Amino acid sequence: MTQTDKSALVVSAHSADFVWRAGGAIAMHAAQGYVVHVVCLSFGERGESAKLWRKGDMTEDKVKAARRDEALAAAQILGASVEFFDIGDYPMRADRDILLRLADVYRRVQPEFVLSHSLKDPYNYDHPLAMNLAQEARIIAQAEGYKPGDQIVGAPPVYAFEPHQPEQCDWRPDTFLDITPVWDKKYAAIQCMAGQEHLWEYYTRVALQRGVQAKRNVGITNARNIIYAEGFQSVFPRVTEHLA
Amino acid sequence: MTQTDKSALVVSAHSADFVWRAGGAIAMHAAQGYVVHVVCLSFGERGESAKLWRKGDMTEDKVKAARRDEALAAAQILGASVEFFDIGDYPMRADRDILLRLADVYRRVQPEFVLSHSLKDPYNYDHPLAMNLAQEARIIAQAEGYKPGDQIVGAPPVYAFEPHQPEQCDWRPDTFLDITPVWDKKYAAIQCMAGQEHLWEYYTRVALQRGVQAKRNVGITNARNIIYAEGFQSVFPRVTEHLA
Amino acid sequence: MTQTDKSALVVSAHSADFVWRAGGAIAMHAAQGYVVHVVCLSFGERGESAKLWRKGDMTEDKVKAARRDEALAAAQILGASVEFFDIGDYPMRADRDILLRLADVYRRVQPEFVLSHSLKDPYNYDHPLAMNLAQEARIIAQAEGYKPGDQIVGAPPVYAFEPHQPEQCDWRPDTFLDITPVWDKKYAAIQCMAGQEHLWEYYTRVALQRGVQAKRNVGITNARNIIYAEGFQSVFPRVTEHLA
Amino acid sequence: MTQTDKSALVVSAHSADFVWRAGGAIAMHAAQGYVVHVVCLSFGERGESAKLWRKGDMTEDKVKAARRDEALAAAQILGASVEFFDIGDYPMRADRDILLRLADVYRRVQPEFVLSHSLKDPYNYDHPLAMNLAQEARIIAQAEGYKPGDQIVGAPPVYAFEPHQPEQCDWRPDTFLDITPVWDKKYAAIQCMAGQEHLWEYYTRVALQRGVQAKRNVGITNARNIIYAEGFQSVFPRVTEHLA
Amino acid sequence: MTQTDKSALVVSAHSADFVWRAGGAIAMHAAQGYVVHVVCLSFGERGESAKLWRKGDMTEDKVKAARRDEALAAAQILGASVEFFDIGDYPMRADRDILLRLADVYRRVQPEFVLSHSLKDPYNYDHPLAMNLAQEARIIAQAEGYKPGDQIVGAPPVYAFEPHQPEQCDWRPDTFLDITPVWDKKYAAIQCMAGQEHLWEYYTRVALQRGVQAKRNVGITNARNIIYAEGFQSVFPRVTEHLA
Amino acid sequence: MTQTDKSALVVSAHSADFVWRAGGAIAMHAAQGYVVHVVCLSFGERGESAKLWRKGDMTEDKVKAARRDEALAAAQILGASVEFFDIGDYPMRADRDILLRLADVYRRVQPEFVLSHSLKDPYNYDHPLAMNLAQEARIIAQAEGYKPGDQIVGAPPVYAFEPHQPEQCDWRPDTFLDITPVWDKKYAAIQCMAGQEHLWEYYTRVALQRGVQAKRNVGITNARNIIYAEGFQSVFPRVTEHLA
Repeated sequence: MTQTDKSALVVSAHSADFVWRAGGAIAMHAAQGYVVHVVCLSFGERGESAKLWRKGDMTEDKVKAARRDEALAAAQILGASVEFFDIGDYPMRADRDILLRLADVYRRVQPEFVLSHSLKDPYNYDHPLAMNLAQEARIIAQAEGYKPGDQIVGAPPVYAFEPHQPEQCDWRPDTFLDITPVWDKKYAAIQCMAGQEHLWEYYTRVALQRGVQAKRNVGITNARNIIYAEGFQSVFPRVTEHLA
Repeated sequence: MTQTDKSALVVSAHSADFVWRAGGAIAMHAAQGYVVHVVCLSFGERGESAKLWRKGDMTEDKVKAARRDEALAAAQILGASVEFFDIGDYPMRADRDILLRLADVYRRVQPEFVLSHSLKDPYNYDHPLAMNLAQEARIIAQAEGYKPGDQIVGAPPVYAFEPHQPEQCDWRPDTFLDITPVWDKKYAAIQCMAGQEHLWEYYTRVALQRGVQAKRNVGITNARNIIYAEGFQSVFPRVTEHLA
Repeated sequence: MTQTDKSALVVSAHSADFVWRAGGAIAMHAAQGYVVHVVCLSFGERGESAKLWRKGDMTEDKVKAARRDEALAAAQILGASVEFFDIGDYPMRADRDILLRLADVYRRVQPEFVLSHSLKDPYNYDHPLAMNLAQEARIIAQAEGYKPGDQIVGAPPVYAFEPHQPEQCDWRPDTFLDITPVWDKKYAAIQCMAGQEHLWEYYTRVALQRGVQAKRNVGITNARNIIYAEGFQSVFPRVTEHLA
Repeated sequence: MTQTDKSALVVSAHSADFVWRAGGAIAMHAAQGYVVHVVCLSFGERGESAKLWRKGDMTEDKVKAARRDEALAAAQILGASVEFFDIGDYPMRADRDILLRLADVYRRVQPEFVLSHSLKDPYNYDHPLAMNLAQEARIIAQAEGYKPGDQIVGAPPVYAFEPHQPEQCDWRPDTFLDITPVWDKKYAAIQCMAGQEHLWEYYTRVALQRGVQAKRNVGITNARNIIYAEGFQSVFPRVTEHLA
Repeated sequence: MTQTDKSALVVSAHSADFVWRAGGAIAMHAAQGYVVHVVCLSFGERGESAKLWRKGDMTEDKVKAARRDEALAAAQILGASVEFFDIGDYPMRADRDILLRLADVYRRVQPEFVLSHSLKDPYNYDHPLAMNLAQEARIIAQAEGYKPGDQIVGAPPVYAFEPHQPEQCDWRPDTFLDITPVWDKKYAAIQCMAGQEHLWEYYTRVALQRGVQAKRNVGITNARNIIYAEGFQSVFPRVTEHLA
Repeated sequence: MTQTDKSALVVSAHSADFVWRAGGAIAMHAAQGYVVHVVCLSFGERGESAKLWRKGDMTEDKVKAARRDEALAAAQILGASVEFFDIGDYPMRADRDILLRLADVYRRVQPEFVLSHSLKDPYNYDHPLAMNLAQEARIIAQAEGYKPGDQIVGAPPVYAFEPHQPEQCDWRPDTFLDITPVWDKKYAAIQCMAGQEHLWEYYTRVALQRGVQAKRNVGITNARNIIYAEGFQSVFPRVTEHLA
């Protein structure tokens, strides 16, 4: 099924998060005709580039450039556009201007749904900041009184994608997305992340485990061969016309 | 859209619960071609028939008969079949035989989804019992080793419908069902409950409030005129192919 | 019962919140002789004035003026004084000066109790900010070392009034206030909110539902005819001399 | 203040629980004119009589007799009547007859409020059983259809009194009762529990800690000299006419 | 390090649970000199033997025998003794006799620690039953008044081992056990479970994921090469003399 | 046991918090050879020095000096070094520089474990701020890209020490530290806090209650005479090689 004129927004704290945590969702929806746009708030230059720093003769600019290239390559494979806010990481801070800049992205993209981080992560304070920013920007983009006359956004559902240690983040998936048809793309995108090779197999196993779990949660008439899946936690209730 | 060969199961502690709490869902899916089957574990003869008892010259059998008639009338309007287990209420207790009897209903009905009560209700201990019974019976019906050779059930999603005082029951809706098209049927079914007239307007207001809330949670491309809705809380994660 | 020299404080994120969510409590306590003071942190000029913006030929100043008039009219009906901090909304931000300004209000008003928003609201980030501000200002106003020599405040109970979608905000009422005697005032105040007419009936139904629930939670010796009520969630334990 | 015709019910799993956990509340309300009735479900003969068993030459009957004497003596000091169900402990089990027997106590006592254990206690499975029994019996006693014609009970508030390790039981006090005026009685009652002398000072310290906390939570106009207090957690919302 | 005279108890709802969920802990402690005893409440003959049932020409006795052989083989590899209560599964029910039988096992084994299931599992009602049984039996075994004169047990810590879908069971590991040194034994034991081959790789991946997570949670001076781990959730606080 | 080259870090919002809440842990580990370093973010000059302010003729500088002297005396008794950030209290705010300054302390101290406040405290907004600061600084100190080339820290466990009203802060101890051997030191340190004499007995009772509770949670082979204890809540899972 190809849908036109539909879009989605992914708010990624660091430049690789969208790959590990939502690469399948991005590729699936791109394949369905969605325009998927990723905002990388930072390059993860301080906190998630250990391998690069250990190379020696490194500067923050060099790290950022390398990370940008990786993210762009991954996004291209997945079928998404990327935008870098470059607001720094470890610590990440977002002032009013950044918030409004993201609200403007919402207005421009008009997303059908939004993906970002879990609201709690004791291992990474940048992640909850990104999610809170994504949620508050959405609310501002909904307001008639913000840049009156511009087209406001509706009420796109927001999902938290999977954090690194899910139970410690009080993250509980309520939605499994079957990503079996696009797993090859996700794994190819994962391989762009040369600086974090130790995570390749970790997130392959995550996809396999979620695949098994998804299968266990499928009703009888929906039988299908799910091998890989991604889990998501909804922020808002969904509205539907049937419960099966 | 009419779907054939699809069915749903509603497990109602007392003979009126399915009307207040899931009448819209029943009518909606009946209209979509679902075979909807309701199991009433009791008639609510002790705990939810105050008005009948106050009439005087009343016996438990008379109360049960009156409640049965009301439930049958309501179910007919909604388009569902009903089955009465008559296990008593206040207190409700279910032994192994009742559990297996319900498991057998699952096997017979092969439901696409299941509706029952919230898992907590400090105002009504029969309600959580009904939900636990519904969940455990589902698990038994899934087991190859229970009546081997019979057709097992898959993994139909289970939802808790709305209790009387939702916040006190730790019930949080994650799914809103638009019942606007069938509201007239639900209200007609509600009016069959002559013994609980004080609840008619209460549940009309519930439907209106959930309607407003549903509208607030709808994404932009799904704009539609929702006036009445029912809320449900999922027990299990759902499995999907798109997130919008 | 008329009590003199007693006061209460309401901290409202936007200029209409105090009406929908606490109008009954304000009118009840005003009728009991309380001096009730409302702080409106913003006019809700961006986020809650959609109808005004759609009129065309509108500016932020005009919206604010209209919203101020509505709030003043409503407060007068309810019997409260109002003070506008005008710190802006969508997004709302409060720096140290605003916090201390609110602490000074506490010192001046010496409230017996405080009302503000729920601590969580995924639909509105200004609401939790207001509650956190109200709580932190209270703590500062309690400190001997803040403006030493001034009269500190005691430990007034703080309540979260009802948000728009209560279950989504993890809001659970533990206190119901019977507002039946002042419902006419609350509804008159509600009608001052010309820009949000779609909420009039919504909050009338909220009051009716809470009224029914309050009645269900009343002990036998307290029988009374409750029709309208407001729900509140306590932040702190209460101290009492009897448990009935 | 003396109130007549008012009563309260305490459901105690073992024959000493009501002393440690609610002795102050009992004495306070007895002093206010309440008829306070205690149901001891068991004597705690197996699980809470270690000192007696270590005496040697002991039988279950002897232990029960000793525990009965202690409980009667304590109740007399506090001003309450006691009734022993003698259903056994470690493990405690309550069948339908016991449940209805307790429902009948509700009907007879017509309590203004009810005290029992926390709903969770990983150190003691009898405690949650007692609370669940107390809650379900209350619901049955409210039902018109249970022994039709008898006087039903209203909706008396139910409180969980303090367990031995409060945080491990997810018990959070939302109500502090000042028991300073009756502390001497509570301590005298505590001293009746000869078999559990190691707990005397423990529960004295509990009362002192809760006294300090109660004082910290008192509003300015309620200043009073609280030294000893008991904490309680409400099961249901309270209904009130003022929030101070 | 070899410790003598120390023992541990594992309470497994079905005859394979102890392998998937605690096989590493069993082998680790057996290697440390612990006597590890496993109680299998049932053989999982109905609910977890689908592959066997599908073979045809099968009876419940044949399934049980096959499952018993698998469990015994696995236990031998891990270094544990096993005892089968054979109380049936799907549904599992435990009466007073079973509870006391398990309490007697506690008295006999005198475990240093106890492992069982999570307290919640919407996919499997036998699992929480097993954990509750394990906890209540422990409490009875602690009571001086149960079989007075017998040696009571102390306060062995109780852990919930990992359920199949951890987040859905509200299970959050607070303890990671490094099982790298005994992984070969665990995997050999896993391979005894011929009837559930689809789970072999699933639980291998679980061990790898928990291994990565354990490594992330290790303090600097504890650096070691963890590859495989098992996660556990504590029921009770631990008591210690140092916090590193 | 004396361990050399090991260290610990305590992040205290106000200059006395580390004494009431972690004085035993500090003295225990100092006695075990740990270098324990305390960071006092403020002197508690506004919010926790009421007695000093009431003396009259007082200035903020005088209060700070008095509080500094008390803290230094207490730390010396406990065996810890102290560092004062002097960032102010009521309200406490920490900008990026303060955060990085604390990250640098982590790098310098290389702690084996970290102690700070609970993540929630409705009575004191400075406390959660201190804990969040402690956690975020730890994360930054772990990052290779922050001051590349400096020695990063590992993953020291972080514990929340006991707040003043534990249940209201959602604080649940999962670890009890036996502080009996150093109680005399803790009480001597407590007595340095001349300005808060009302808390001396309060925290003595806290230590006694936690001592009783610790004893109740000790396994049989660990029998020892615990009289005084401190409770802690872990932020992260621990990694271990045995479960007893």
